[in-house]
Amino acid sequence: MTDPAPARRPGGRTARVRADVHRAVEELLREQPLAQLTIAQIAERSGVHQGTLYRRWQSLDGLLLDVVTEHLVRHSPMPDTGTLAGDLEQYARQTLDDLSGPQGKLLLRTLVAVRQGPESEAELPPALLRRYDELQALLDRAAARGEHPPTVQDVVDLIVAPMYTGLLLDGTPGDEDTARRLVDRIHRLSQTS
Amino acid sequence: MTDPAPARRPGGRTARVRADVHRAVEELLREQPLAQLTIAQIAERSGVHQGTLYRRWQSLDGLLLDVVTEHLVRHSPMPDTGTLAGDLEQYARQTLDDLSGPQGKLLLRTLVAVRQGPESEAELPPALLRRYDELQALLDRAAARGEHPPTVQDVVDLIVAPMYTGLLLDGTPGDEDTARRLVDRIHRLSQTS
Repeated sequence: MTDPAPARRPGGRTARVRADVHRAVEELLREQPLAQLTIAQIAERSGVHQGTLYRRWQSLDGLLLDVVTEHLVRHSPMPDTGTLAGDLEQYARQTLDDLSGPQGKLLLRTLVAVRQGPESEAELPPALLRRYDELQALLDRAAARGEHPPTVQDVVDLIVAPMYTGLLLDGTPGDEDTARRLVDRIHRLSQTS
Repeated sequence: MTDPAPARRPGGRTARVRADVHRAVEELLREQPLAQLTIAQIAERSGVHQGTLYRRWQSLDGLLLDVVTEHLVRHSPMPDTGTLAGDLEQYARQTLDDLSGPQGKLLLRTLVAVRQGPESEAELPPALLRRYDELQALLDRAAARGEHPPTVQDVVDLIVAPMYTGLLLDGTPGDEDTARRLVDRIHRLSQTS
């Protein structure tokens, strides 16, 4: 996390375009509701040509999915409390917080939008793929300490999935009790395996 | 299920409007892709005025959510195999089948659409609420036989939620192994409580 390297050089034109577009969308979303956002506005604000935006992200929803997952991952670093129990509890609370705000609804909307139509087999956005790797690292640290961690699939099924589904079906990912209840389930399951 | 009563009388004007609209949408969806469907077409085909459609369902997505949940519930009756294990296994397989087809994506899309914006606290469609009641009845039958069933919340969290989330994140609710794995988890958890 605390990289001792000197100021990083930008990663070339592609990375600069991406950073400019992300910044433009976050700015625009502070000024106006999401529903009014257009690709034309993002092009104007970021200084990136509309054609480039469509080539890179295919659609407005694809672009927004990229922005929202990047935002969530950047603002919710993976916990590293020193114990599996502490890490899972903090992870559950953070996920709940992330999904509770307007970002949660935006995440659902854009995930569903890119899952419709022919591009439905599209890869997950880079930030979500990185998230899986970080979660695996969290579980590996627990195993290295001699704890008996669940798998990434278990964590997604038992913590993330009920929150997504609560948001879908009830309009909310849950409350404090939900986070506690879901983490408790993971611990109980680990006793049976 | 096998109601001995003579031919039922239609439930009045509201029920007739609903039946006409559902029939019209199912017909239209056999003729053309969903993305081209409009409220105007549904009004024309069903003979129900556009104003009535908007008053009743607020939006095209609200209307489609009602149609798709009604369709899923009607075509996937709750299992009643005589054992809790048999019922849960069949329920998991059916849910997987239901979500695997085009109906699964339609369900996600319309659920998310009605969860956006101010109407996000809207009630679930009647068919989904009925579904919860039917699931409760399935679990009550198991308890009456002396089995130790999970709660409705457990079934939603442990069977339904990972399938919805698989559909969202990977474009598929899972495969045969998924159904088996999720039911196995419920059984393992019941041994810990």
